[in-house]
Amino acid sequence: MNLIQSNQCFQGEQRIYSIESNALKTTSRFGIFLPAQALAGQACPALFYLAGLTCTEETFAIKAHAQRMAAALGLILISSDTSPRGDEVTKGDHWDIGQGAGFYINATQAPWAEHFQMESFVADELYALITQEFPVATGQVGIFGHSMGGHGALTLALKYPEKFKSVSAFAPICAPSQCPWGEKAFSAYLGTNKDTWLAHDATALIEAKGALFSDILIDQGLQDQFYSQLNPALFSQACAKVGQTLSLREHAGYDHGYYFIQSFIDEHLQFHAVQLQ
Amino acid sequence: MNLIQSNQCFQGEQRIYSIESNALKTTSRFGIFLPAQALAGQACPALFYLAGLTCTEETFAIKAHAQRMAAALGLILISSDTSPRGDEVTKGDHWDIGQGAGFYINATQAPWAEHFQMESFVADELYALITQEFPVATGQVGIFGHSMGGHGALTLALKYPEKFKSVSAFAPICAPSQCPWGEKAFSAYLGTNKDTWLAHDATALIEAKGALFSDILIDQGLQDQFYSQLNPALFSQACAKVGQTLSLREHAGYDHGYYFIQSFIDEHLQFHAVQLQ
Repeated sequence: MNLIQSNQCFQGEQRIYSIESNALKTTSRFGIFLPAQALAGQACPALFYLAGLTCTEETFAIKAHAQRMAAALGLILISSDTSPRGDEVTKGDHWDIGQGAGFYINATQAPWAEHFQMESFVADELYALITQEFPVATGQVGIFGHSMGGHGALTLALKYPEKFKSVSAFAPICAPSQCPWGEKAFSAYLGTNKDTWLAHDATALIEAKGALFSDILIDQGLQDQFYSQLNPALFSQACAKVGQTLSLREHAGYDHGYYFIQSFIDEHLQFHAVQLQ
Repeated sequence: MNLIQSNQCFQGEQRIYSIESNALKTTSRFGIFLPAQALAGQACPALFYLAGLTCTEETFAIKAHAQRMAAALGLILISSDTSPRGDEVTKGDHWDIGQGAGFYINATQAPWAEHFQMESFVADELYALITQEFPVATGQVGIFGHSMGGHGALTLALKYPEKFKSVSAFAPICAPSQCPWGEKAFSAYLGTNKDTWLAHDATALIEAKGALFSDILIDQGLQDQFYSQLNPALFSQACAKVGQTLSLREHAGYDHGYYFIQSFIDEHLQFHAVQLQ
């Protein structure tokens, strides 16, 4: 674990580290905000944030405006990169595939399978590292994300409820098997047998797993330029079917970007702080 | 005035416009946050923000985390670019001179004088445009900034107290005539006669003008990597000499960047809201 950058922020520290990842077989960076409580060695709840297409580990730290409330609540915030990166990693032909577009799944198809193991990276390798190296309160780990990262947060929470005890999302891709972004990425990473896709599709997963959380929070802007990719209604229907409480809040006027996220970030952190208590 | 981008944010709107500037003889962009009160046509206090070296009109909107408190207080926030830009504008040999480094003064020397008229642009042209085109409460306009933009805020407030009724700064260049950044820029833009520099040096100006504000707020990190360029003690001594109240707050552990700014931005907005009442 190599410290790249550290900046004091709200009496805590916003840091960036690089690690040699076994899962990704390359160097990867992550961001972490440590509130003053954590710097003093006090065990704190922790929240993993997964970002959307084209983002890096730094996007959340700069644009989401989360540190103020995290400092007030004593929350540790972790943000991974969105894919493996580097010259040795397949780049992809467009911004919605390849580097910056890992979709938080383990690829099974060439040329992707060699490095694109983001599910294992986040849920196993990075999770283990964070809980070992930083003062994370036992069992008090949640996950949230945006867009592709909202898909990642929902699916990883549903697959690993013993690791992630709370989950929320901003404008998540709720049914990747049924939208162009998901169809392109899953075809490339998992192959064309759609049966293999369903284990990575939040809407299919919630139907298979049933209700696992006391509540799930999703915020969705109604001026979202990518609304047709997101399908919150399908996820909402699946939650209703299995009795999973879902707080789906639709907001007039808000689009897909970080100006939307920053407007509601405080409420997500408060939601997790309560759920993780 | 051409609207480039608009994003809803805390029930207000963060916008970017471009204008054909007479002062700069080129196209220039500015950012503006309009709180819901302003969108509803209510007259609001307004605050100009001047950014530091290498920044653009967008830096403040993304990195300073000001919109939440501005929405709560009903403050309009305006952020200009840091220099004229474009192929026809002299670029400079380094990031501390030329494009991205206008120093908020009117250059008198070739090749800069043609476009580098940032003082006239901000204090006259952009000021007039904003107060005409948006619902700014009469007389309720303040100014603040960071680093080079902190120098800009202090000097423009001292030169135009009839326009700017409140002033604050983060890590400002307090005495540009006495630091390497200022010496390089002023030599280039104003020539080597140092007498001409003093009209653009906050420490010299406060001595010349006397106490003009009921208070001036400056926040300064003590881990600032550019501390030797900033000279807050010289400004503080000059304020004391003329009886200008100065709230100079020095903060252990904070550096020069936006993680520092975001940690104290709320208090700056609250300071201006009170001063402008």
